[in-house]
Amino acid sequence: MSLPRIAVDAMGGDEGVRVMVHGAALARRRHDKFKFLLVGDEPRIKAALEDHPNMRSASEILHCEDTVAGDERPSRAIRRAKTTSMGLAINAVKAGECGAAVSGGNTGALMAMSKLALRTMPGIDRPALAALIPTLEEHDVIMLDLGANTECDARNLVQFAIMGAAYSRIVTGRTAPRVRLLNIGTESTKGTDDLQRAAQMLGDATGLDLAFEGYVEADKINRGDVDVVVSDGFTGNIALKAMEGSARFVTDLLKTAFSSSLRSKVGFLISRPATELLKHHLDPNNHNGGVFLGLNGVIVKSHGSATADGVANAVAVTARLLESEITDRIAADLAEMDEHSWHNSGRAGAAVASEPAPADPDGSAR
Amino acid sequence: MSLPRIAVDAMGGDEGVRVMVHGAALARRRHDKFKFLLVGDEPRIKAALEDHPNMRSASEILHCEDTVAGDERPSRAIRRAKTTSMGLAINAVKAGECGAAVSGGNTGALMAMSKLALRTMPGIDRPALAALIPTLEEHDVIMLDLGANTECDARNLVQFAIMGAAYSRIVTGRTAPRVRLLNIGTESTKGTDDLQRAAQMLGDATGLDLAFEGYVEADKINRGDVDVVVSDGFTGNIALKAMEGSARFVTDLLKTAFSSSLRSKVGFLISRPATELLKHHLDPNNHNGGVFLGLNGVIVKSHGSATADGVANAVAVTARLLESEITDRIAADLAEMDEHSWHNSGRAGAAVASEPAPADPDGSAR
Repeated sequence: MSLPRIAVDAMGGDEGVRVMVHGAALARRRHDKFKFLLVGDEPRIKAALEDHPNMRSASEILHCEDTVAGDERPSRAIRRAKTTSMGLAINAVKAGECGAAVSGGNTGALMAMSKLALRTMPGIDRPALAALIPTLEEHDVIMLDLGANTECDARNLVQFAIMGAAYSRIVTGRTAPRVRLLNIGTESTKGTDDLQRAAQMLGDATGLDLAFEGYVEADKINRGDVDVVVSDGFTGNIALKAMEGSARFVTDLLKTAFSSSLRSKVGFLISRPATELLKHHLDPNNHNGGVFLGLNGVIVKSHGSATADGVANAVAVTARLLESEITDRIAADLAEMDEHSWHNSGRAGAAVASEPAPADPDGSAR
Repeated sequence: MSLPRIAVDAMGGDEGVRVMVHGAALARRRHDKFKFLLVGDEPRIKAALEDHPNMRSASEILHCEDTVAGDERPSRAIRRAKTTSMGLAINAVKAGECGAAVSGGNTGALMAMSKLALRTMPGIDRPALAALIPTLEEHDVIMLDLGANTECDARNLVQFAIMGAAYSRIVTGRTAPRVRLLNIGTESTKGTDDLQRAAQMLGDATGLDLAFEGYVEADKINRGDVDVVVSDGFTGNIALKAMEGSARFVTDLLKTAFSSSLRSKVGFLISRPATELLKHHLDPNNHNGGVFLGLNGVIVKSHGSATADGVANAVAVTARLLESEITDRIAADLAEMDEHSWHNSGRAGAAVASEPAPADPDGSAR
């Protein structure tokens, strides 16, 4: 069976196109079975391909001059789906020409366009944005939702847990990833009604390929003893950004401290390999690639300021998810969590009705 | 005018009592006008006072053997208000014998007992837990609510903004502290309805001694360009703990990196003054003292694992708030934000009805 292609939104100016093509070329060295559809300005893409002979035979170009702006409202972007590089990349997935799309553009627009074009997969009420976060241990932890849905009910959270576990099985190789709900305490009385109900449902569920271990507090996300951290998109976005900001804060303080005296400057030079190790571990490029889970197709968000190495990681994540058939895995798990389990567990509010995603596409985060 | 006394919950075993008394003694060196009511086991307190002659004349002891356990449910603790050191310290504030109380005990119990005994001040629907967080600039930023209320409406958030600004004026000396609401983006369409409504109300308000500057994302809290960050207690608790966990994560990585080779160990020894500076800046003891704002009396939570220096900081914060008459300041600001403003601004939901605090005292965080 031939593997499906990956659509790459080669947006932006000369530099933007070059970074995306370079990143895809680096990823192709790791996953050389994959082929690409490069969507964007053809002359720029061709110029960028000059440097990457390994990509030329593996790529088709879909010309398009228009791009979604970084600050463009999702509600406006979705009306330009047929003319923008982002919209055409997503449409290639919708039409079955590609199995996945990667974009470094506007997150809210990418989310809204993907949702509209691809729809959620059967059994999923809302898609979620998931990302890999570094830990003290070997494996990254997966956090979701990071901002696709400002508000979520218990049923959404349970679906996120199932999707996150499927993703974690692929990246960690664990058969039953340890899943926890993000909360302000670990006692069962903590948090919102929806969190408590989701905990009840996950605790009662049987046959799922995950180990539900209750709640996790936000200061324990990085310790390496949890594989999937589940939350609504508002809370997940706050936690992720707080962690990013705090890591930057500490490294900024460290820089200031190291440059505070001649002695500490000398010490810094000597211990450079150590601080480089730290820098490497914290570099967001090494954890690049947010995945929208729960759609009929794989959509991956690369960070807007990612380097070619960062883009390569996002494309490699995409290739891995496609290869592992993430969508089928999620569908199989959802089948385990059948109607009986949903109804049986929704004690407090009973049945926890399915609720459609909000109509306003601007409601999603970043 | 004589300054009101500070009640100190001298809870815990020998070590706990010693740390609290030592901390109060250190604080008294900075604020020597203050007197103390030390609540706890008299023989232990007397033994601890042996080492601190400056405290003996300034302290009265209220004997009590019973303490609130660290994992005790708030609903159980409030029934033991008359027999526990925490309960008696709070009651001393209620009876007007002290102006403030400091405790290193169970946060949920302290919150529930304080709320029940002291009640919220006129014009405040719910109290909030506020703390000082280090920034890259000279002044700390104040964050609130950090977990007193799991869910908050727009009116609660506006009241938190007013209380946080009063606190910030005292610690930073700024006449109009810069206030922002914690959100997942800075555009006006981001976040929940309550956040958007609170932003509207604060934007429309006139005569308040604060500068409302819109939203702040969680990665910008430490940058030093905001003085007060306002959120509901769930979000604030998640953000605070995510920041704490991430800072610890980076310093743990740094330790691992520095001990990874002989060369980096040597570098570490040489740059020690720099890393000590970092350690000092990040030490939670230097930012100890969470304040419950909005009650008829000042209640300060010291971290359970604080050192004597940490306790001294919490007691010093308490002294400073008492001296500056924080409660009166908040009352004056609330008077500015009169009924007209509340009604005028509550456009979307109109008037934003006052809502009583939840009946379940176990609902609060940590």
